[in-house]
This record gives sequence, structure tokens and C-alpha cells, in this order.
Amino acid sequence: MSKIRLALIQMKMLSEKKKNIKNAVSKIYKAKKKGADIICLPELFLTNYFCQTEKHSNFNLAEKIPGPTTDIFSHLAKKLKIILLLPLFEKRTSGIYHNTCVIIDEKGKIKGKYRKMHIPDDPQYYEKFYFTPGDLGFRSFKTSKGNLGTLICWDQWFPEAARLTAMKGAEIIFYPTAIGWHPKEKKKFGKSQLNSWLSIQRAHAIANGVFVAAINRTGIEKQGSKKLEFWGNSVIFDPSGNIIKKAKFTEQILICDIDYKKIETVRRHWPFFRDRRIEYYKDILKNPIDA
Amino acid sequence: MSKIRLALIQMKMLSEKKKNIKNAVSKIYKAKKKGADIICLPELFLTNYFCQTEKHSNFNLAEKIPGPTTDIFSHLAKKLKIILLLPLFEKRTSGIYHNTCVIIDEKGKIKGKYRKMHIPDDPQYYEKFYFTPGDLGFRSFKTSKGNLGTLICWDQWFPEAARLTAMKGAEIIFYPTAIGWHPKEKKKFGKSQLNSWLSIQRAHAIANGVFVAAINRTGIEKQGSKKLEFWGNSVIFDPSGNIIKKAKFTEQILICDIDYKKIETVRRHWPFFRDRRIEYYKDILKNPIDA
Repeated sequence: MSKIRLALIQMKMLSEKKKNIKNAVSKIYKAKKKGADIICLPELFLTNYFCQTEKHSNFNLAEKIPGPTTDIFSHLAKKLKIILLLPLFEKRTSGIYHNTCVIIDEKGKIKGKYRKMHIPDDPQYYEKFYFTPGDLGFRSFKTSKGNLGTLICWDQWFPEAARLTAMKGAEIIFYPTAIGWHPKEKKKFGKSQLNSWLSIQRAHAIANGVFVAAINRTGIEKQGSKKLEFWGNSVIFDPSGNIIKKAKFTEQILICDIDYKKIETVRRHWPFFRDRRIEYYKDILKNPIDA
Repeated sequence: MSKIRLALIQMKMLSEKKKNIKNAVSKIYKAKKKGADIICLPELFLTNYFCQTEKHSNFNLAEKIPGPTTDIFSHLAKKLKIILLLPLFEKRTSGIYHNTCVIIDEKGKIKGKYRKMHIPDDPQYYEKFYFTPGDLGFRSFKTSKGNLGTLICWDQWFPEAARLTAMKGAEIIFYPTAIGWHPKEKKKFGKSQLNSWLSIQRAHAIANGVFVAAINRTGIEKQGSKKLEFWGNSVIFDPSGNIIKKAKFTEQILICDIDYKKIETVRRHWPFFRDRRIEYYKDILKNPIDA
């Protein structure tokens, strides 16, 4: 097995969980019809991006894993014989919540989960209020359709995260994401921000000789006087950093054929792993010097 | 002092050291006339890219640091009151040679040197035959015109190198480089290779909130039946990863104004250093798992 078909579900989220589940399920059926083996949903796909504000009642949106949503999608994965990457707001226990991605295999079994390691906190992205930073480390999951590495959104700005996930054996690194423009910043910085986001993920593909898939939500989400425009642009890079496919701004199911053999070829020609100077990397475990 | 002017000397190398020195000196004068404070030359600028073949007599091209070439350029730096980054083939002792970058300050004093840490070895890039991997670690040099980090060519594919150099305080990371196309590969892979090279360096600027400057040689160099086409395209990225200026394929002095204040602004808005999970990065010091 070296060839698989991937589907990234770029979605617009509504305020009702049920509607988002319905939308996701319907798109998963469509993706399966097109032959997808592995399907990935965007970060926190069950809800609007509630982190725009700090509101204690939003913790009601979290749920246990396994729980009602994983039950629905485990059943679906088994029925359709697909592998699912399901990003959820996880309730671990009272007072501890995570931004999590669950891997469900084609038998409907939960293979494991990844808890977002790097938590942002920016105006309208108040994630540090909601999510305890992950404590499961960086992960890759061996499935019947390849080794799938899981990172989430903000993790994408950290080369260490991509490196560590690739070194665990990941052949594809997935980044379920919720990234967009502040309406005030879009005109001046919008293009540059989107380009930076594409560039950094492209570089992870190149540096690590892996496929990289970013799955973003789309659409404008208002919360009171606050507003964010999620920019879509879900994308898949090959291990040389070439774009295989990229979505636009609207809802879209991005279907893409992956040939894992490409990893071997690329790493033979660009053998970066051969030349790492691991004995000189110790200071990576520190913070920058005081300047 | 927050604003400085930078010059990257994109050069075509000839087979005679003297001619390359003459060309470099003449271009340094021109750059100074245009107000450059800091001037960087390409990797191994004294010679053709001799690593196209493995030839013991090529070790004759190496020299001591300090030595005849640093003497010439120390004198020049003092005379013109400029900071120079001078990439040389260093003879450390019999049997140990390095691919080195020397930093000379505006008083003509050698501030220090960096020895290339990651050594490539590819057909026609037989660097492992010539260069012992650096043992000085990753470095940034405090100068009157800012903190200058030095990496060399192949280092550019390693996110660890950029991260460690930035964490030492570098405000600009310099990559003197000798990269080009194999004539056989150019048609099929040329565009993708050049784009990957630009992307990975762009990502270092973004991930670390620093300026990144890559200085490449240009021109076709033949050695017997072997040939490489060095692709120029020297480039400077700002700390958001935007291209400030980029050269084409011919000889060019790339002049660029840098405002270090931009680093503070970018890092306030994209505070990646704040969120690193250093306690979970230990496996960076290992090689990938056996697959």
C-alpha cells in the first residue's frame, strides 16, 4: 500500500452543534463517494470559534472522549470504512479542558488522541482561557493507510512540533485549523498573513520530507461586537513543499491522492535527517538568552 | 540605532583567487558608496565551487584564519568603516578543514568565526570530503550595527540551526550560499528547487521573528565534464517573512534598509517564543525512530 486518497473538509461553522454535525456527516459521505480513505475535519468543528470571547458558559460545549460525538463518528467511520481525524473540545475533568484531535480507524475504534501542545492567546483568540496545554507530547498514529501525525493550528508556527511529529514516523502531518483575519487588519496585513501561514507549513513539508495537510474553517463568524473572517485556503503539500491542491474561501471538500513512495524519493535526494547535529541542539530545550 | 543598511554581494566566481578578491573588493567599494554598514559575501567566495570533485590538491586552497585573506579584508573593513562577513575555506591544521564565515568589525578586528555545522554530500557537492563539521556551535555576534547570526548554505534546511541562532540573539541570520542546479535536473525540478530554497528561509524568518539574508553565487561553473549552474536569487526577508529585496541571476549588489524595530513589533503580534513547550522537545536531540 503506497497510494491513498485524502479528503480535507473545509467547512463553515454555525452556532448549533447539530447543524455542524449534519454538515460534517454529509460532507464525509460525499468524500467517501469520491474514494477518500482518510478524512480530516477542521479544528473545533462542532462549534463556532467560541474563543473570540472569554465566557465561562462556553465550557458547556466541551465533552468527554469517548463521548457522544466520538460515538456518532466512530459508527460512521466503521460504516464507511474510513479513517477520521476529529478535532474536539475535550473535557478531561472539571477545570481541565483540551483542544484535541481524535483518530478513529476504519473499524470505528479510537486509535488515540493528540492534545494541542502550543496554545495561542491573542485578541479574539483567547485560547489560554479555555485550553490546558497538551501533556501527551507529539504523536503519530500507525493506521492501515499510513502513519498520521496530528498537530493543531498554532502548533504550525513551531518547527519543533513538525520535526518531532515527523520523527515519530508521521508520513502526513495534519493541521486542523481555525485561522482568519481580524477585519481591522485584513486590508493592510491580510495577504502577508495568509502567505506566512502557507509558507511555514510548506517549510515543514520540506524540512521533514513529509506530506502536510492544513484544514481550515471558512466564513465570517460574529460574536457580539466581535468578528473574525476565517480564510479557508486548506492545502496539501508534497514532501518537496509543492502544493498538490489548495482550496479557496468557500466550503470545499479537498480530495487529494497521496503516494507515500514520494517520501523515500525526496529524502534520498534531500537527506536532511542524515546530517542533523543532534549533539549541538541542546539549547533548543531552553528559552532565548536575555537580550 | 535601529536602522542599518545591508549589502549582499551576489558574485560570479572565476578560477583565480586574485580575480575573485579583486571583484569582491571592487563591489565592496560600490556597496560602501551606497551607504552599506554591513556587507556579506557568498560562501567560499575566493574560489570556484571546488567541491564538484574530490581532489586532494584542492586542500591547497584553504588558508589559516587569521591569514592572508582576512588581512586584506580587515584592512578594507577598517578603511571603509564597514562590518564584513567573509566566508572562507579554513585550514585549521593538517587534515582538518572547515567551511567558515569570519566576522570582521568596522575597526578591522576579527570578532569571531562560525564553522558550518551541517555538511552536505550530494553528487557534485562533495563537501563531506573537504569539511569537518563545525564544532563551535551556533553563533550570533554583537556588533555596533546589530546582532548578526551566521549560518552557511546547507544549514538553511535545518530549522534547529535557525532557531538556535535566533535564540543566541541574532537579529539578522546570514546564509552565505553556493546553491545551483544540476544541468540534468533543471528543467524538471529547477523551479521547485528554487522555490523550496526560498520557502525554507522565509519560514526561518517567520518562525523566529528575525531578518534572514541569503547570499548566493551566480553563473555556470565547469569542472572537467561536470557543471553546475548557480542560481543567484540572493534575498532578504523581514521578520514576517516578506521579501524585502531579491536579486535575479546575474551579478548584483543587493542593497537593503533594515529597521530592527520591526522585530519587536512582529514578535509582539506573533509571540511564538512565548509559547514554546521546551519541556516536551527532548526528542529533538535524538534521531528519528526506526521505521
